[in-house]
Amino acid sequence: MIIEELTMDEFEAGLERTRTVLIPFGATEEHGTHLPLATDTLQAVEIGRRLAERRPVFIAPPIHYGVCRSSSDHPGTITIRTETLKALALDLVESLYRQGMRNVIMLSGHAGGTHNAALLDAGEEMLRRHPELKLAVLTEYVLAAGEGKGIIETEGDSHAGEIETSRILHSHPHLVKGRGEREFPSFPAGILVRDKRRYWPGGVWGDPTKASAEKGARIEEVVLAALEKLVARLEKEEF
Amino acid sequence: MIIEELTMDEFEAGLERTRTVLIPFGATEEHGTHLPLATDTLQAVEIGRRLAERRPVFIAPPIHYGVCRSSSDHPGTITIRTETLKALALDLVESLYRQGMRNVIMLSGHAGGTHNAALLDAGEEMLRRHPELKLAVLTEYVLAAGEGKGIIETEGDSHAGEIETSRILHSHPHLVKGRGEREFPSFPAGILVRDKRRYWPGGVWGDPTKASAEKGARIEEVVLAALEKLVARLEKEEF
Amino acid sequence: MIIEELTMDEFEAGLERTRTVLIPFGATEEHGTHLPLATDTLQAVEIGRRLAERRPVFIAPPIHYGVCRSSSDHPGTITIRTETLKALALDLVESLYRQGMRNVIMLSGHAGGTHNAALLDAGEEMLRRHPELKLAVLTEYVLAAGEGKGIIETEGDSHAGEIETSRILHSHPHLVKGRGEREFPSFPAGILVRDKRRYWPGGVWGDPTKASAEKGARIEEVVLAALEKLVARLEKEEF
Amino acid sequence: MIIEELTMDEFEAGLERTRTVLIPFGATEEHGTHLPLATDTLQAVEIGRRLAERRPVFIAPPIHYGVCRSSSDHPGTITIRTETLKALALDLVESLYRQGMRNVIMLSGHAGGTHNAALLDAGEEMLRRHPELKLAVLTEYVLAAGEGKGIIETEGDSHAGEIETSRILHSHPHLVKGRGEREFPSFPAGILVRDKRRYWPGGVWGDPTKASAEKGARIEEVVLAALEKLVARLEKEEF
Amino acid sequence: MIIEELTMDEFEAGLERTRTVLIPFGATEEHGTHLPLATDTLQAVEIGRRLAERRPVFIAPPIHYGVCRSSSDHPGTITIRTETLKALALDLVESLYRQGMRNVIMLSGHAGGTHNAALLDAGEEMLRRHPELKLAVLTEYVLAAGEGKGIIETEGDSHAGEIETSRILHSHPHLVKGRGEREFPSFPAGILVRDKRRYWPGGVWGDPTKASAEKGARIEEVVLAALEKLVARLEKEEF
Amino acid sequence: MIIEELTMDEFEAGLERTRTVLIPFGATEEHGTHLPLATDTLQAVEIGRRLAERRPVFIAPPIHYGVCRSSSDHPGTITIRTETLKALALDLVESLYRQGMRNVIMLSGHAGGTHNAALLDAGEEMLRRHPELKLAVLTEYVLAAGEGKGIIETEGDSHAGEIETSRILHSHPHLVKGRGEREFPSFPAGILVRDKRRYWPGGVWGDPTKASAEKGARIEEVVLAALEKLVARLEKEEF
Repeated sequence: MIIEELTMDEFEAGLERTRTVLIPFGATEEHGTHLPLATDTLQAVEIGRRLAERRPVFIAPPIHYGVCRSSSDHPGTITIRTETLKALALDLVESLYRQGMRNVIMLSGHAGGTHNAALLDAGEEMLRRHPELKLAVLTEYVLAAGEGKGIIETEGDSHAGEIETSRILHSHPHLVKGRGEREFPSFPAGILVRDKRRYWPGGVWGDPTKASAEKGARIEEVVLAALEKLVARLEKEEF
Repeated sequence: MIIEELTMDEFEAGLERTRTVLIPFGATEEHGTHLPLATDTLQAVEIGRRLAERRPVFIAPPIHYGVCRSSSDHPGTITIRTETLKALALDLVESLYRQGMRNVIMLSGHAGGTHNAALLDAGEEMLRRHPELKLAVLTEYVLAAGEGKGIIETEGDSHAGEIETSRILHSHPHLVKGRGEREFPSFPAGILVRDKRRYWPGGVWGDPTKASAEKGARIEEVVLAALEKLVARLEKEEF
Repeated sequence: MIIEELTMDEFEAGLERTRTVLIPFGATEEHGTHLPLATDTLQAVEIGRRLAERRPVFIAPPIHYGVCRSSSDHPGTITIRTETLKALALDLVESLYRQGMRNVIMLSGHAGGTHNAALLDAGEEMLRRHPELKLAVLTEYVLAAGEGKGIIETEGDSHAGEIETSRILHSHPHLVKGRGEREFPSFPAGILVRDKRRYWPGGVWGDPTKASAEKGARIEEVVLAALEKLVARLEKEEF
Repeated sequence: MIIEELTMDEFEAGLERTRTVLIPFGATEEHGTHLPLATDTLQAVEIGRRLAERRPVFIAPPIHYGVCRSSSDHPGTITIRTETLKALALDLVESLYRQGMRNVIMLSGHAGGTHNAALLDAGEEMLRRHPELKLAVLTEYVLAAGEGKGIIETEGDSHAGEIETSRILHSHPHLVKGRGEREFPSFPAGILVRDKRRYWPGGVWGDPTKASAEKGARIEEVVLAALEKLVARLEKEEF
Repeated sequence: MIIEELTMDEFEAGLERTRTVLIPFGATEEHGTHLPLATDTLQAVEIGRRLAERRPVFIAPPIHYGVCRSSSDHPGTITIRTETLKALALDLVESLYRQGMRNVIMLSGHAGGTHNAALLDAGEEMLRRHPELKLAVLTEYVLAAGEGKGIIETEGDSHAGEIETSRILHSHPHLVKGRGEREFPSFPAGILVRDKRRYWPGGVWGDPTKASAEKGARIEEVVLAALEKLVARLEKEEF
Repeated sequence: MIIEELTMDEFEAGLERTRTVLIPFGATEEHGTHLPLATDTLQAVEIGRRLAERRPVFIAPPIHYGVCRSSSDHPGTITIRTETLKALALDLVESLYRQGMRNVIMLSGHAGGTHNAALLDAGEEMLRRHPELKLAVLTEYVLAAGEGKGIIETEGDSHAGEIETSRILHSHPHLVKGRGEREFPSFPAGILVRDKRRYWPGGVWGDPTKASAEKGARIEEVVLAALEKLVARLEKEEF
C-alpha cells in the first residue's frame, strides 16, 4: 500500500490489514559522474515498493533530503541540518502513530554517520513517548553490504561503488551515465577538512566498474529478504 | 532539469545554463474519498516538470509532507510542525544557494494558511541572509484559482473540489476513484475545534462532481503560463 | 474585569464569575502618516474593555508587539519573530489555564498572515495539551471588515484605511494627525521583495479619506456584537 | 516621545532628535491584596513617561509579562518562560536597532532574579551582535531601593511593601485597595519549594502599612533623577 | 559515594542507602593572577567529597564549565551559554531521577547571576516534571559568605578574594601562586560594558592578601556544616 | 598545560607557546561490574595529561557526561541529550577560539555513535563559523582498537572489555573491582529495543578477563603516539 496513491478511504481500510509502515529516507547527493543524485532515495523507495508487493505494509512517501557531510561540497548535493532531519523523523513517526501505526520502519537509503545518528536519536525519543510503539531504524546500504557479501567483489565498496551502481543499473538503468571510476578517497583520519572535494575528487568510494544489473537484482533480492524477515519479527515479538 | 535524475556532472553543467531552481512543496493529506493522498505533491511536481520542458530551470526533489491543520484527524493525513517545515525550507534554500542557485521558487501544492506562513517566514529570513538571493513563494492552488476563473464553475471551490479533481483527472487519471461528493464544511468562525472531522466529514471543500480531465488540462496550462511569466520576471528584475 | 487593575483577591473572586479571558494581541506598526503606531493594539484593547462592560470576562494585559512583514522597513514598525510570538502565546495561555481559565480568546488587532498563523499554531498546540480548554483565535480586522460591510465604502479597504481610521477617530481622535491618503500598493504577486517601502511608500492600504468617527462608532458596535455572540457560543457549546 | 502615540512620520522625525529608546519591562503579578496585578508595569511605564518629559528619548510600548517564580501560584500571576522573555528582548532590541536606535535602556519594573538574568543575557548577546549599540539593563526596584534609602522606613522592604505601595499610591491611587499587611516570608534557604503560597501566604515582602503617596512622589523623583543621569552617561561615554 | 569511582554494582547497592545526590557545578574562569582557573570547581568538588565522608550521599561528577559574564574577556575564562547550562542541568537531573534519585542538590561553586538563574530555572522545570522530586540549588559562595562572617575580615569580599583564596590555600595550596592583590572593580551601574577588562583589570573582587589556609579550613567547616543541615532537612521534610 | 591548574597569567603566557587545545569528552556510564563509571573520562583525561608532558598543548577540563544509548538503563549511567552535547561542544570551541586557540582536538573517551555524531556535527559547524580554525574529532577507543591491534587478543573487543580494562588496570588499578566477565550482547539488528538490559545484562562487550596492566601500558603508549602525530599534523598542514 503506497500511501501516496491511496485515498482517505483506502488508507482507513488498510489499517484493518496492518499497522506497519515503512518510511524511506533518501538523500539528494552526488554519486559520482555516473549515478543520479537521487540514488539513495531510489534504492529505499524501490525496496519499499517491492516489500509492499510481498506483504501488507504501508509505504510512506519518501524524504528526498538527508544530512550529507563528506559530499556537501560536491555539485548537486543538497544537505539539511541534523536537527531538521531529527525534527522531521519525530513529526512523521508521531503523525503516523496518531493515524494508528504501531510498527514503524525508518529505512534509510543514505548511510552517513550523522544522518543515521539523527534517525536513531529520533527513534529512541519516540520509544519513550509511546509505550505501544515498535521501531526499526535501518540503513539500506548496511543491509546490502552485509547480505550481499557473496555477490560483491570489491572490498570496502561503499558510496557510488559496485553495490549502488549495480542496484541502479538494475532498477533504473536509464539514469546511469557510463560506469564511473574506481576511487578510494583518503581523508586524514580524525581531522575535519574544510575542502572535502580536495580529498575526494570523484565522489566515489569503491569500484563501480565491477557493477552489473544482474548483481543489482541479486543484491536487491537478498536485501528484500532480510528486510522482510525483520518486519515479520518486529510485528511478532516484543522489544 | 530534474535534479533527482542528474549526475554530479550534469548538475554542474546545468549551472552554466541557469541559476534558477523550483522546489515543489507538497503534502500527504486526505483529499476526499476520490483523490490520492499525494494530490498536492502531484500537482506541484507536475507543474515543475512541465516548466522544465519549457525553459532552463532546475526542479528540486519534492517535499512530500506539509502542515495540515483542518484535515489532521482525517485518515491518511501525515502532518509536520510549522517549525519543521520552516527548518526544512531554510536548509534547502541555504544548500541550494551554496550550490550556486540565485533565484529560488518555493511552489506549494498545498494551500494551508499556517503551512504557507512557514514558507514565507523562511523566505524572508533567507532574503536577509543572502543579499544576492531572489525568492518567490507561491501556492499552486492560488495560481489555479486565480488563473482558472473562466474555466471553473464552482464558486468557492477549494480542497479536493472541481479544480484539484480536474487536475488529477488530467495528470494521473488512474489515481482517481469515483468522483467524490460536493461539500462545503462550516467550521465555527474564529473558534478552534478539537474534532475537525465532526465539522468536515467528507474532507472535500468544493464540488468535485463538476470536474473533468479537459478542465484539468486547461487549468494546468494557465497555471503554467502564469508561473513561466513569474519566473522570467524573477530572473530579470531586481526585487 | 481588566486584569491589570485587579488585586490578587479580586482576581480570585472573579474566577467565581467566569473562566473566560480575552488576550488582546496588538502590534507596533506604521499606520500611514495619520494613525498612531499602536493602532492595532488600541483597537483590540478598546474592544476588550467594552466587552468587559457587557459581560463577565477577564481582559488580559495586551501584547504590544506582533509580526510585521510588509511594513517592517517603514519607520516606527517594531517587529518580532514568529517563534517569539508563538512562544508568548503558548506561555500566556498556559499560565492563564493554570490560573483557572477555560475559555481563551486571542483577539488580534493586527491582521498579518504570518502573525496570525503563529497564534493559530499556538492555539492548536494548546488544544492538544489541555483537554478542558476551549480557544478562539480572531482577527479584529476580519471581524470589522466582515461585519462592517454596510458601513464601509472602500472596496478592499485594509491597513490604515477607511476602517481603521474610522475606529481610531472614534476611540482616540487626539491621536489622528490629518486624514492620510488613499493608497493601494501593488507588490509583485508571489515574489518576496527586499525593499518593501519601494512598493508601499505611504504605508496605507485602502482609503482613509473616507473615514469618520461616526463610522468608527458603528463598526465598533457591530464588531463588539459579533464578538459577544462568539464568546457566548464558546462558553456554551463543546468544540 | 511615546512610541505608541507617534505616527510613522513623527517617529522618523524623532530620530533626528535622539537615538535613545527606553523599553519598560513589567509583569502581571500578584502584589498582595492591596496593589494591582500591573504594579510592576505601571511603575516602569510611569518612569518612562516622566523621563520623556524631561529629555528627548523614545519610550517603547511596555511588555506586560515577565518571569515570576515565587509568586507563580498566587492568583493573578501570569508568567512566561525565561526563554520567551529573552527572545522578546532580543527581537525588540534588534528591531529598534534596525530602526536606528543606538542607545537602548531596558527598564524592568519587576525585580525577579531569573527575570532580570534573561534581560541581561539578551543584552550581552546584542552587544556582541552590534558593535555600535550601547545598552543598559536596569531594575526599577533596585534604583528605588538604592536611591530611596533616606525615605523608606522598612528594612528589607521589597515586593508590594512600603516602596511599591507608596509608588502606586502616588501614581495610581484609585488602584490601591486598602493598605495591605506587613509580611516577611521565610522560604527555606536554597531549597526549591513546590507550593510557594504555603511559604508566602499574603504575597507581600515588606511593610505596605508604612506607605504614603508623599513618599511615593519622593521615591519617584529620586529614581527619575538617577535614571536621567544614567541615560545622559550612556549617550555620552563609550562602554 | 563518589559516582565517578563506583562500578555499576556499587552504584546499585548505594541506592539502597540513599536517594540523595549532589551535583557540583563549577566554572573555568580567571581568578586573578594567584588562583587556578578551576577555583570554583575545586571548591564545590571538595565540599562534595567531604560531605560524602559524613553521610550517605552520591556525589556526581562535576560540571567544569559555567556561564561567566564579567570575566569572559579575561585570559583563561571558558564560558558557555545560559541555554546550554540549563539544558545540561535538566538532562542531569532527569537522568539521575530515572536512576532512582529523589533528592538532588545542585551545588554551584560559581556565583554568577545569570549562571545561577539558569540552574534555578532548570530546577523549577524539573519540580513541575516530577512530583516526587525534591531539589536544592545552592551557591557555594553564598554559603561561605554567609556562614563565614565571623572569620572573614574583608567587607564585600567576593571573586578571588579573601574567602576563595583561603579556601584554595587550605585545600590545594600548591595551586596558589603568590597572594594576589586587593581590588574592588567599579562597573558603571546598570550599563552593559563591552570591554570588561577595562573595568576589572586584575580579575579580583575583594582582598586576597587577607587570606590564610587556616581561615580556609574554618570556612570550609562552617560551609560543610550548613550544607549537611540542609541535606538532612531536604531528605526529611516535604517542600 | 592543564587549564584547570593554570592562573590567568599562566594561561596568557601559554598562548605564546601554542594555540592548540585538547578537550577530553568523557561519559558517566556503566562499565560492567568491574570498572568505574568514569572509565571513559579517565582514559581521555589520562591521554590528555600525558600528551601535555610531551609537547606544548593546552588540556581543557573534561566533560564528564556524554550521550549513552545502549547502556542508559544500566545502573550508574547518566546520559544527556545529543542536542545538549552539541551545544556544549559548540560553546566550548567558540569560547576557546575567542581565547586565541586555533587548533582544537575533541578527544572522546566514549565511543557511542550518536555521541560522536554530535561532536562531529558541532565540529563541522565551527569550521564554517571560523575560517582560521582547525579541528579534530577523535574517539579514544578507535585509536586504541586500531593502534593496539597487535596487543589485544579479543576479536571485536569493545565496551569494558580487554582494552578498557587493561587501560584502567594500568592507570587507576585501585578502581578496578575484580576482572568482570566475557560478554558479547546480541541486540536484534536494526530494531530499537525498549529494555536494553534484557539484551545486555552484564554491560560488557568483549573480554575483560584477558586484560592486564601491562597491556594497558602498551596500548596507552601507541594511542599516545598516534595522537601526538595527529596533533603535529593538525598544527602543520592546512585542511
